[in-house]
Amino acid sequence: MEVTLRKCFELLQAAKKIVITAHIHPDGDSLGSMLALNHYLVANGKQPVMLLDDMIPPYLAFLPGSSNIQTNCETSTDADLLVVLDASDIERIGRISTLVKAPILNIDHHVSNTKYADYYYIDSTAAATGEIIYQAFRETGWSVDIDTAICLYTAIATDCGFFRYANTTPRTMRYGADLLEIGVNQSQIVDYLETISLKEIRLLTEVLKTLEVHHNGKIALITLDARSLDPAISTESFINYPRNLDGVDIALLFKVVDEQTVRVSMRSRHTDVSKLALKFGGGGHARAAGCSVNASLNEAVEQVLTAAIAMLQEG
Amino acid sequence: MEVTLRKCFELLQAAKKIVITAHIHPDGDSLGSMLALNHYLVANGKQPVMLLDDMIPPYLAFLPGSSNIQTNCETSTDADLLVVLDASDIERIGRISTLVKAPILNIDHHVSNTKYADYYYIDSTAAATGEIIYQAFRETGWSVDIDTAICLYTAIATDCGFFRYANTTPRTMRYGADLLEIGVNQSQIVDYLETISLKEIRLLTEVLKTLEVHHNGKIALITLDARSLDPAISTESFINYPRNLDGVDIALLFKVVDEQTVRVSMRSRHTDVSKLALKFGGGGHARAAGCSVNASLNEAVEQVLTAAIAMLQEG
Repeated sequence: MEVTLRKCFELLQAAKKIVITAHIHPDGDSLGSMLALNHYLVANGKQPVMLLDDMIPPYLAFLPGSSNIQTNCETSTDADLLVVLDASDIERIGRISTLVKAPILNIDHHVSNTKYADYYYIDSTAAATGEIIYQAFRETGWSVDIDTAICLYTAIATDCGFFRYANTTPRTMRYGADLLEIGVNQSQIVDYLETISLKEIRLLTEVLKTLEVHHNGKIALITLDARSLDPAISTESFINYPRNLDGVDIALLFKVVDEQTVRVSMRSRHTDVSKLALKFGGGGHARAAGCSVNASLNEAVEQVLTAAIAMLQEG
Repeated sequence: MEVTLRKCFELLQAAKKIVITAHIHPDGDSLGSMLALNHYLVANGKQPVMLLDDMIPPYLAFLPGSSNIQTNCETSTDADLLVVLDASDIERIGRISTLVKAPILNIDHHVSNTKYADYYYIDSTAAATGEIIYQAFRETGWSVDIDTAICLYTAIATDCGFFRYANTTPRTMRYGADLLEIGVNQSQIVDYLETISLKEIRLLTEVLKTLEVHHNGKIALITLDARSLDPAISTESFINYPRNLDGVDIALLFKVVDEQTVRVSMRSRHTDVSKLALKFGGGGHARAAGCSVNASLNEAVEQVLTAAIAMLQEG
């Protein structure tokens, strides 16, 4: 049932035992939103429990309260209300959906939301779930404290690429301004989020050497062998290099994960790469998609490149 | 003489022939501010002339009106008022100071401003000169048009790292929100600003190979030889790599511009690098500064590195 933000907070008010969760492969928005709501509920006399069927990525461990999130949980928990944040599909919360038997309240901003919850509030004009949570706090008149502001700022800023992506609205920026006014030190948050290790920069240097352009510069690709890679090294941003290359439409990152598997990340300026990913059993969005190919690196590059060129030729 | 913003606009109103200029090595803020003020003056019946003793970097050529800027000028020009934007020192405008004989009105946000102008308005709490210009437009009640908004947004966003740097205030973000409301397509601007050429990415790969860390990882430096470099290649962002390195306080980029000159860009997390730059006749802000050293690359690295280590040891 679709509900108003006010109704969401009435449900929270009425519930005795509240569990808060969010999607697996957590990011700044899912964790920041969980923690912000938890801070609010604690400040309002509740004792919510935060559960996550995953681990906290080290770069987000700075978020105030993150150590209170129970990660990789396996035990059933009683609750009156399961609050699911920033998850467009019930599958996205992993085992939490079976471990917690309670009516679900879902607050989310994904346009692809499947409306799976008993109660849901979905605002796809919001750049982040954190933007909705902050709006709700404003409406309740709650005076947001600094810890909550840090969580909300991180939630909002990470989901809109620090106010650069097309999902950033005047509201997004005004909420950012409000949170700075509360005392958020955004350059410190940026430091946490953008700090790279010497290993990462050395790996980036190697990966950039592999850059190839094809099809009159419309396709650019890089490759990396992740078989002996330190799992703490983030390669998330590497695809932005071919993505931002002048004249490139389709950018591809081929990552060898084992002898038989190459994970392919795709980005684009014009072509719908979710269709390209789909040809290899993957998926995603028009501008960002991915798939896995069971092949050697050379074979995977050849297969995906051939399919990408065919797509560009079809127009 | 220090003047109010209102007085600045009275001077503009009174002047018949206005020349607008800004610092050489132009960036988003200097060009965006020049163009925004020019749009305002034209809309208010003036016929200002924009002069710049440099070229327009290709990545900023998208700014509406940029083709009207007279670049690399060599002829004297009569004027009633020379408006100098975003330049903290008269040297920073190159030959324009001798080519244009007129009282100078300087609007700037650099804390290091030498107060060289006949009339000056300096607000070092502004993240960008564009932020001051927009504030002035608000005060005059002028309804900012979309071209001006694009120039102002670019000015503000580029000087505060898209609202990530410590100089970003709630006001900075609220002005950003206002400009989005006028219709600025910020993700398109980001595409213009972040598009890199194949030459640039190849150069970046070479420059990343030069990365060195010193003083227990607190100083990181990269070097590049710009003597045979295509001037269209922007190396502006390269310093972010050592800057974002885990544990680094001071990041340095050494750029050989000719046999006798090395330009040094400096960034920091804690140390005031404007003081380091000052030791070599340069200047800037606490977190971002620069200077030129008349020496070979090896000598420049040794001199600046020694001074940087000394600063860290002094604490």
